[in-house]
Amino acid sequence: MNIHGQHYRTLWLKPDDPQVVQIIDQRHLPFALVIEDLRTVDETAVAIREMHARGAGLIGALAGYGMYLAALEAVAGPADTFMERVAVSGAILKATRPTAVNLEWAITRQLTALAQTRGSNDDRVAAARRLAAAIADEDAAYCKQIGEHGLALIEAIAARKPGESVNVLTHCNAGWLAFVDYGTATAPIYAAHDRGVKVHVWVDETRPRNQGARLTAWELGQHGVPHTVIADNTGGHLMQHGLVDLVITGADRVTYTGDAANKIGTYLKALAARDNGVPFYVALPSSTFDWVMTDGVRQIPVEQRDPDEVRVIDGWADGRVQAVRLTPEGSPAANYGFDVTPARLVTGLITERGVCAASAEAVLRLYPERRAAAVIA
Amino acid sequence: MNIHGQHYRTLWLKPDDPQVVQIIDQRHLPFALVIEDLRTVDETAVAIREMHARGAGLIGALAGYGMYLAALEAVAGPADTFMERVAVSGAILKATRPTAVNLEWAITRQLTALAQTRGSNDDRVAAARRLAAAIADEDAAYCKQIGEHGLALIEAIAARKPGESVNVLTHCNAGWLAFVDYGTATAPIYAAHDRGVKVHVWVDETRPRNQGARLTAWELGQHGVPHTVIADNTGGHLMQHGLVDLVITGADRVTYTGDAANKIGTYLKALAARDNGVPFYVALPSSTFDWVMTDGVRQIPVEQRDPDEVRVIDGWADGRVQAVRLTPEGSPAANYGFDVTPARLVTGLITERGVCAASAEAVLRLYPERRAAAVIA
Repeated sequence: MNIHGQHYRTLWLKPDDPQVVQIIDQRHLPFALVIEDLRTVDETAVAIREMHARGAGLIGALAGYGMYLAALEAVAGPADTFMERVAVSGAILKATRPTAVNLEWAITRQLTALAQTRGSNDDRVAAARRLAAAIADEDAAYCKQIGEHGLALIEAIAARKPGESVNVLTHCNAGWLAFVDYGTATAPIYAAHDRGVKVHVWVDETRPRNQGARLTAWELGQHGVPHTVIADNTGGHLMQHGLVDLVITGADRVTYTGDAANKIGTYLKALAARDNGVPFYVALPSSTFDWVMTDGVRQIPVEQRDPDEVRVIDGWADGRVQAVRLTPEGSPAANYGFDVTPARLVTGLITERGVCAASAEAVLRLYPERRAAAVIA
Repeated sequence: MNIHGQHYRTLWLKPDDPQVVQIIDQRHLPFALVIEDLRTVDETAVAIREMHARGAGLIGALAGYGMYLAALEAVAGPADTFMERVAVSGAILKATRPTAVNLEWAITRQLTALAQTRGSNDDRVAAARRLAAAIADEDAAYCKQIGEHGLALIEAIAARKPGESVNVLTHCNAGWLAFVDYGTATAPIYAAHDRGVKVHVWVDETRPRNQGARLTAWELGQHGVPHTVIADNTGGHLMQHGLVDLVITGADRVTYTGDAANKIGTYLKALAARDNGVPFYVALPSSTFDWVMTDGVRQIPVEQRDPDEVRVIDGWADGRVQAVRLTPEGSPAANYGFDVTPARLVTGLITERGVCAASAEAVLRLYPERRAAAVIA
């Protein structure tokens, strides 16, 4: 999507030095646009763990490029240890964000492809680079298709309230900044806006890291989409008073049975949506599906992050990003990264292949090639 | 309760100058303890509107003392305009926080008493001072009784998990800082802690003004009660995983039919409590009851506050309170102050007279003197 009228993706190879991966260092948004060079696996691991780059699709795409950097590092060592060194790098990258299923998916895909590549280690480096690009392109294509399928939901609501805006609530950032382009939860919104369907977005600020207030608000603003930032506490009241037509969130991991792990607090919005008859959709590319787990609430691991993310917040003052402490000195804090919304609260899933119910049966109908492997709940 | 080992209430008359009301200016907590002198009705109105003093009971008590300052101002004018001037001051104070029922209640109580006071205007000033003190003392006494009644709920849970802490989740600050002493939601917690019942409090930070992170965490810490600050998004996840035994919140207005207006986001916690079988209690003194309204969600006015409370946050850095902006320049924000939790989600009400169900029948059984006036829903 566009920044200051110029098209960007969230990651790319440096034009004059394709051994360097470039990303938008999202920690500085919305206050400054900083491009970061990643030259090593370790730098990539830091970028993922410290959330310079974050979001399901982008983590997957960056892990893909991280494995390309891993191959570049391995090719500099003894030829017969190439695969072993690449595997160690994969393990390092995999450990950075335990909840993110796309991370493991992209790394496994690269390791499998490398193991199957014939020829020299240089050929394997070239293959890793091609596959990293393919993973990124596929992510963008899938998000675009999610936008097309979700657009139909927004258009159906718009038809029922001619002249009025369709109010969509979203949580966290499942926007193009969380993927390679378009985003998932935002893709239908951008598609609607671009076709002249009036749409307004309630943006949950999404504490503690404020990805909504910082990233979703910024990218919607850059694209000209009307939006309003709200405290995470607000959605229930809005839904009670008819001010939300539709909730669309992204997800970090969705079991094929329809349980959706997403940023902490998503579950609360799903409960409010159910209580007020507001449709609640989760938008995801198929790489976000977990084809093994059947009970997301009990099985999906939820990472606990640094409590200082709750105690201390970054904001803009005096022309720079400053950190201020919010809590009393000595008060402990806890920081759970995600929660899991059970399938019973999810109206539907918006995937690159279409919209379906949040059930194993419906998901496997869209992805029949998974049917043989899936454990039917 | 205690600050640095010394007992404080949240407001009092200045010892060497009883024409001055002193309050803790809570905007500076938890970073600094600042005492503010209020000498006029206008200063009192600013203190209420700008939330130097906030919370249902404290607003009522401060309005009581504000009417004493109003009487002091009126007695300086023409004798025959005394009551008129006091009434105008009452209207000024009443307009500061439209959702706070205690505000109107204290002002009406003062105006009624003043109208009934025989003697000189000086006698009326003395009467206003006595009534202000009585309102404050009554508030403290009611909160203490709420603590005793709520203690039984905590003890019952403690008996089921010997040796383990009872985990209580609370939202916003319904602590002693929101009242004259003890608090409402915190009163049972303090009562349990003081009697050696192991209790741990999950403190919702309570965006946008962070009364939980700033005030509840601070007062619990000062009293030595184990607690953990969490983002408002977290409670649902904690309840899904058995980490919350009990939710207790305060309220700004509760219909006698059991619908509870409280800080925005309370409704979301009530939904999560219901979904996970966690008891959800609202603690309140009877002054918080609205004896007229029967449908809180539709009838209780919810104030919208300055959007900059969402966009900009205060915190501590470099030895001083600093404001930092959280959102992109130009992104709009909305700031709804309260939401209403319908009675169907409330397990019970903890009042100074005892614990009862959130229904007109149960409330009127505790307050039979209200039965004649109440509209039975």
